[in-house]
Amino acid sequence: MYVIVVYDVEQARVAKVCKYLRRYLHWVQNSAFEGEITEAQLEKLKSGLKKIVDPDCDSIYIYRLPQERYLHKEVIGQKKANLEQFLD
Amino acid sequence: MYVIVVYDVEQARVAKVCKYLRRYLHWVQNSAFEGEITEAQLEKLKSGLKKIVDPDCDSIYIYRLPQERYLHKEVIGQKKANLEQFLD
Repeated sequence: MYVIVVYDVEQARVAKVCKYLRRYLHWVQNSAFEGEITEAQLEKLKSGLKKIVDPDCDSIYIYRLPQERYLHKEVIGQKKANLEQFLD
Repeated sequence: MYVIVVYDVEQARVAKVCKYLRRYLHWVQNSAFEGEITEAQLEKLKSGLKKIVDPDCDSIYIYRLPQERYLHKEVIGQKKANLEQFLD
């Protein structure tokens, strides 16, 4: 499956969340990662994130799509990550 | 169609970008908006954003899906926006 992860976490945990997400996904820009991932990897990712974040103030959204081909991506301004501009 | 917009813009333009995106989409968390939008509205949104951002340093990613039902959303921590946790 394909996922997009966006996070809004306290400054103290940004680097840790970012480093952790890099294990599984591609960095897109500040606060966003994406990539192809298996169900098992996603479960690990979620479990790991839950150990890092403070649920009372941090927020992480995980958008899941069955396949990358359902997604069309367009960039305005800097394309910070080294990814294909259009996924389909 | 359904879109997710994530932005990474200089502090000086954050409020302007945020205010502009609110015209068309729902705020999700810092740096992320989403919502159902028509093709015509999306064209207007992109055109407006291009007038606000500095393409040399700002970055806005627009993820487009044909239908909301392709998307599954999960939240870890705070669900900052008042949206359904699961879209399908």
